Amino acid sequence: MQYEISNRMSDVHGSAIRELFKLGADPNMISFGGGNPSAETFPIPEIADIIADVMKDAPVSVLQYGLSEGYTPLRDTMKDYLTRTQGFDFENNELFILSGGQQCADLTTKVLVNEGDVILTEDPAFVGCLNTFRSYGAKLIGIPMQQDGMDTDALEAALKAHPEAKLLYTIPSFQNPSGITTTLEKRKKVYELACKYDIAILEDNPYGELRFSGEDVPTIKSMDTEGRVLYAGSFSKVMAPAFRLGFLVFNKSLTMPLTIAKQTTDVHSNVLFQYVCNEYMTKYDFAAHLDKARDVYRAKCNLMLDTMRRTFHPAVTFSQPEGGLFAMAFLPDGMDSQPFVREAIQRGVLCVPGSAFLADEKQVSNAFRLNYSTPTDEQIVKGIEILGKLTHEWIKE
Amino acid sequence: MQYEISNRMSDVHGSAIRELFKLGADPNMISFGGGNPSAETFPIPEIADIIADVMKDAPVSVLQYGLSEGYTPLRDTMKDYLTRTQGFDFENNELFILSGGQQCADLTTKVLVNEGDVILTEDPAFVGCLNTFRSYGAKLIGIPMQQDGMDTDALEAALKAHPEAKLLYTIPSFQNPSGITTTLEKRKKVYELACKYDIAILEDNPYGELRFSGEDVPTIKSMDTEGRVLYAGSFSKVMAPAFRLGFLVFNKSLTMPLTIAKQTTDVHSNVLFQYVCNEYMTKYDFAAHLDKARDVYRAKCNLMLDTMRRTFHPAVTFSQPEGGLFAMAFLPDGMDSQPFVREAIQRGVLCVPGSAFLADEKQVSNAFRLNYSTPTDEQIVKGIEILGKLTHEWIKE
Repeated sequence: MQYEISNRMSDVHGSAIRELFKLGADPNMISFGGGNPSAETFPIPEIADIIADVMKDAPVSVLQYGLSEGYTPLRDTMKDYLTRTQGFDFENNELFILSGGQQCADLTTKVLVNEGDVILTEDPAFVGCLNTFRSYGAKLIGIPMQQDGMDTDALEAALKAHPEAKLLYTIPSFQNPSGITTTLEKRKKVYELACKYDIAILEDNPYGELRFSGEDVPTIKSMDTEGRVLYAGSFSKVMAPAFRLGFLVFNKSLTMPLTIAKQTTDVHSNVLFQYVCNEYMTKYDFAAHLDKARDVYRAKCNLMLDTMRRTFHPAVTFSQPEGGLFAMAFLPDGMDSQPFVREAIQRGVLCVPGSAFLADEKQVSNAFRLNYSTPTDEQIVKGIEILGKLTHEWIKE
Repeated sequence: MQYEISNRMSDVHGSAIRELFKLGADPNMISFGGGNPSAETFPIPEIADIIADVMKDAPVSVLQYGLSEGYTPLRDTMKDYLTRTQGFDFENNELFILSGGQQCADLTTKVLVNEGDVILTEDPAFVGCLNTFRSYGAKLIGIPMQQDGMDTDALEAALKAHPEAKLLYTIPSFQNPSGITTTLEKRKKVYELACKYDIAILEDNPYGELRFSGEDVPTIKSMDTEGRVLYAGSFSKVMAPAFRLGFLVFNKSLTMPLTIAKQTTDVHSNVLFQYVCNEYMTKYDFAAHLDKARDVYRAKCNLMLDTMRRTFHPAVTFSQPEGGLFAMAFLPDGMDSQPFVREAIQRGVLCVPGSAFLADEKQVSNAFRLNYSTPTDEQIVKGIEILGKLTHEWIKE
């Protein structure tokens, strides 16, 4: 049989990064290509204990079908936590536990975006979500990222040019791929423009708890008096990715369509790990756990940046992340990072060319993304030294 | 903010059954409404042991990001199992582990069906998948179910009338909701018509391993020489539902679009439970486990059918399931089961009106679905006696 692939999926290409994961599995390859959190940060003994206890005391409660909205005690715990830490308003908002941050984007798009609708996105942005948007036939318009967040002049111009745009996608804290954190001023400006032009915002904040330097900046959702921000969080980076758990906070008017979208997609999320998250957050020292994870990432990020300062050609610039898992390096203006990355892979170092993260992947990018959370310290030094040598060969003075 | 819900989601209503689950949580309600497997069948000590061991020996392997296609050892185990038990051909087919049978339908639709496309479905059929199809804006055409499977004359007429139809949806074994098993002759005829009219089949077989009487009938996929059958299986009924694991077998030409669809939806499925399934199937006596589950369902089904024979008005007919979790009862022709079900709920017994399972939910149905896997034996007898009394009141002789 000759299959005809649906229009929505015809234009979506595989995530370059997921494919790179496979190259990264080569034990001789030093991989800065992935986005795995460091396994050092997983609270393994506590997870094991919680599972052992519940499998002894109440196994059926975590093995039988659960609710589409999520495990009620964990929903309550997260509402309480986000009220306390972010000042969220759960009079007007609801919270669902979903199957990872990726599903937050998937169901948001399913419920709000028609085929052919425009989605505005930071450019570059997390390719996983860009592909989700593409998989619903959305048209992506990129808003260039600057050192302090997206270019809000370009955002306003795009909002004027596309009054029908349905959604604005942003990762304001420790952005993937750029490592950039949007300033408070720009967050306010973004929210103000969203109100002025009546567009919903998907604020994706999987790394928000992983600030290891600088001062906290309020989330856009915390400023949201109009219920126009959908806020996606994830347990992947603060517990473990294979939990496949995230949460979406949204205007209560979206409760029914999101419930149905969840039912039609995967019925409900894994109950056992929802139980583990709830036990961990209520009975263990979650704050201390986060501090430990921040220490791990601070050290790894500093090691990578220090090695870049020491070994990279001075014409190569790079972001200074205050949290999260990624830094981005920029070859001199006009250079294409793709052949550079291909050469790096030849020499045993994996990183991802910036073009993979663009709204229009056919554009040339001088950037490449570096993940510092997965490699060991030795790999960071050795791999960055190899890249550093390559920058000197690549940039003719 | 006033949200506008996407076209695709505007016409999908919540699953009546998922909402009934909430009523079913009332401890005074006898629920035949759900579709939960019996918790007696969960291999709890074995699951607990496998998890305890892997959390001690290789925790990171089950907590870190996994592959979108599924955990490779489990994929290999399932290919081997399905080759052995069903004669599937993995030269031309591929198998992915997905997040439950529901996601098998979700990704199949995402990849193959455009908005406005026709999907042909058994009528009645599993409402969870009907809603999935609706959530992609598909137009559903129902093919009436008969005692031996769908009406193949009606199927051929529909195929002629809708040459553009993209997919035919069927649950040939122990169908949800009807409990009907499609005969070998009809399976052959369905496959032959699919070939003649060049349409893909989604064969949904979540209950296939739960035959407790009669002879095995080959799956449609086992006859598939043209690669036109997508075969969905589930671990929900043979391990535990909260695993959220199923598997999809499909023509290799669909590997890339299905990989991308999975990446954009939830990245990958829960790794820990994929590991558990693989260990269980390779190191424990899976066949004996299935036999035990079949014993449970045989006893419960017989008890329900016997009580129905004893107490129901003779004008009420019902299916004779040879496996699975459901029986369907039929009030006399022309009667509407909705007010009957509402009255039953008033009296403390929950079942689901047949109209919930129709391609066109506005049609009247004289049927109601009865689940025998979840209630206790006492609840089965007491609940059916209440329904039986009601049939006598309802049907004026």
